[in-house]
Amino acid sequence: MSGRAAELDRDDPLARFRAEFVFEEGGPLYVDGNSLGRLPVRARERIGALVDEWGVELVRGWNRWIDLPTAVGDLIGPELLGARPGETLVCDSVTVNLYKLAGAALAARRGRRVVVTDRTNFPTDRYVLEGLGAELRLFDPDPVAGPSAEDVAAACAPGDVGLVALSHVAYRSGALADPAAITTAAHDAGSLVLWDLSHSAGAVEVRLAEHDVDLAVGCTYKYLFAGPGAPAFLYVRRDLQEELRSPIQGWFGQHEQFAMERDYEPTAGIGRFLAGTPPILGLAAVEAGAELVAEAGISAVAAKARALTSFGVERFDARLAPLGLQLGTPRDPGRRGAHLAFRHGEDAWRICRALIERAGVVPDFRAPDTIRFGFPPLATSFADVEESVERLADVVERGLHLDLDPRPARVT
Amino acid sequence: MSGRAAELDRDDPLARFRAEFVFEEGGPLYVDGNSLGRLPVRARERIGALVDEWGVELVRGWNRWIDLPTAVGDLIGPELLGARPGETLVCDSVTVNLYKLAGAALAARRGRRVVVTDRTNFPTDRYVLEGLGAELRLFDPDPVAGPSAEDVAAACAPGDVGLVALSHVAYRSGALADPAAITTAAHDAGSLVLWDLSHSAGAVEVRLAEHDVDLAVGCTYKYLFAGPGAPAFLYVRRDLQEELRSPIQGWFGQHEQFAMERDYEPTAGIGRFLAGTPPILGLAAVEAGAELVAEAGISAVAAKARALTSFGVERFDARLAPLGLQLGTPRDPGRRGAHLAFRHGEDAWRICRALIERAGVVPDFRAPDTIRFGFPPLATSFADVEESVERLADVVERGLHLDLDPRPARVT
Repeated sequence: MSGRAAELDRDDPLARFRAEFVFEEGGPLYVDGNSLGRLPVRARERIGALVDEWGVELVRGWNRWIDLPTAVGDLIGPELLGARPGETLVCDSVTVNLYKLAGAALAARRGRRVVVTDRTNFPTDRYVLEGLGAELRLFDPDPVAGPSAEDVAAACAPGDVGLVALSHVAYRSGALADPAAITTAAHDAGSLVLWDLSHSAGAVEVRLAEHDVDLAVGCTYKYLFAGPGAPAFLYVRRDLQEELRSPIQGWFGQHEQFAMERDYEPTAGIGRFLAGTPPILGLAAVEAGAELVAEAGISAVAAKARALTSFGVERFDARLAPLGLQLGTPRDPGRRGAHLAFRHGEDAWRICRALIERAGVVPDFRAPDTIRFGFPPLATSFADVEESVERLADVVERGLHLDLDPRPARVT
Repeated sequence: MSGRAAELDRDDPLARFRAEFVFEEGGPLYVDGNSLGRLPVRARERIGALVDEWGVELVRGWNRWIDLPTAVGDLIGPELLGARPGETLVCDSVTVNLYKLAGAALAARRGRRVVVTDRTNFPTDRYVLEGLGAELRLFDPDPVAGPSAEDVAAACAPGDVGLVALSHVAYRSGALADPAAITTAAHDAGSLVLWDLSHSAGAVEVRLAEHDVDLAVGCTYKYLFAGPGAPAFLYVRRDLQEELRSPIQGWFGQHEQFAMERDYEPTAGIGRFLAGTPPILGLAAVEAGAELVAEAGISAVAAKARALTSFGVERFDARLAPLGLQLGTPRDPGRRGAHLAFRHGEDAWRICRALIERAGVVPDFRAPDTIRFGFPPLATSFADVEESVERLADVVERGLHLDLDPRPARVT
């Protein structure tokens, strides 16, 4: 390790949080926390306790569990996303939550059937919007800098847009959009705005209330460390809640749920965006992970993300640029999330395989040419950043990927 | 315990399965397994192992996990529901799965916008169908015997019905519908059929292929012992899969999911009914519980359910009928699921409270007048049946409920 990485780690006020995670003895250097975050020690404990509670409390456990979607929502929303209490829920998947909120928005904006999004938005976001029967207007943002307020204003100019749905941090480039300017541009055109915060929550500061954001969704298994397929969150601004109705009318969103003879009448408040029975095991894990980020404080977490990625860019310039790789992420630390995209023409896939199979590094690949290195602040040291870049440089320098099959296979 | 209960327990070929569950020392007599099933010892182990796998394998775990929705589906469908391999998935909640399948069916039957269901169907089923924008045609079945083929034929007579959606076992009365006759009646009228198997899976025999059933959904946290909010299952008959498209177009249902630049194109087979990232912790629990039922064999499980409920009816006649309670469940053991409904005018709620607070029994209440006793075959002894009925008789005889507040509160 260089003196510089050691110095940064010594001065890191969040260094102690590494001990909160499970690290396998002799395990790989893991830089894919932006796909699936590490296991927090307390998540293991919390899940075990929940299972024991199920065994002993049986159905009586529901007296506590029934509040978890809103209680854990109120941990994530106000603590990590700048939302007010009562605006955030944890339930279902990002895909299903996006469907519910985008569907509700379009139904409330009858006559404005056009949805604006960008062609580089995450696939499930584009698929869901298309599946809603919306007319999609796709624009092409700058591939590194991501969508801008000008892009959105231009796409909304015809005056027929009901919803602008974008990712706050782009899954591929890591570009951080300007939510204040873009939300204003959409509102000026009479549209609602929905932000996908999947790569933002637990990585950067988000100010939903301050920016007057209408709707948001996001996932918990990346920078919130809640495990594979953990339930997602959704946010609806308080003064919109009464106006919107989820297209998926389920019994957990019903007014007086257990008076079962009634017709459907959505409950007051954020609870109306629940659908079926919420996944309680997953909620216990989300609570544990979100609590950890809240303990560290989102400002400190976001500051460390900027420092880690800045150090990564420094190492990129020193070691990877000379080898022909390109930086696919904005250089301004205020304009990116917590991952970096390194691009390498046609060999990115094989380089990823070589990193995994021959260099003890787990990165991820995004077609066609991107190697992503994610640096979840609580679980990543500056030494990790340096060493992972070093091993990537070594693979390319020594051509350790050149005899591997170039065909892409399953990677999440 | 009477000699009769002891004799039935001694002759029970499934008696050894009680040891597969966690029983709290001194815990209550639990007859609400039809709301939330007990914790299997192996579910605790399996969930712990999954958490450890997450900690060590990290994102590489997805190479195995990605197959769980279909693999666990193929445990439930062919082993427990009489489906063919490749027709069953485990994912999302019952509510969301019902929305996906009913939405797909209505889109495929354009011009036939009417959905037939019965007014006593489970609330979330009615709410979801209404939320799809379908025109609901509700019929009133016999309150004890449940919906009949004649009811369905009459409701379908106008020739405008696209979907008949019913519960196989009624959540309140426990009545088991005749799926062969009803499916045929609906098909004869040109409609598709969707069965909600929430109170059937793991309790009675189901023959989806033999009865040519089109669609089904159901939950896993009752008689499949998968824990609070565990993911649900869905079934689509093989030759319908290509024709149907889920309204919730998510990346897990996409052809070549990780080639992310494509437009949405649903994958071949049952996988197209996936939406977002599936809940892996919950899937581990479903696998453990479904495996247990498959080991016992669904025929043996269903036979024990009939024997337990028959013994319960025998005890009802001896002890509860003389106290003025009414049996709300069919007397023919071939026409019911694994729970019994005891009705008691206006006092059912208070009797339930007294059972919980003063008699060490956990039953459940369904408004306005029903006390449900559920007997999941693998976790219930004949002695449990006798003792729970005895304690209910004791509460009523001694008026232990009479000083309690009659107001209903939260009960699942």
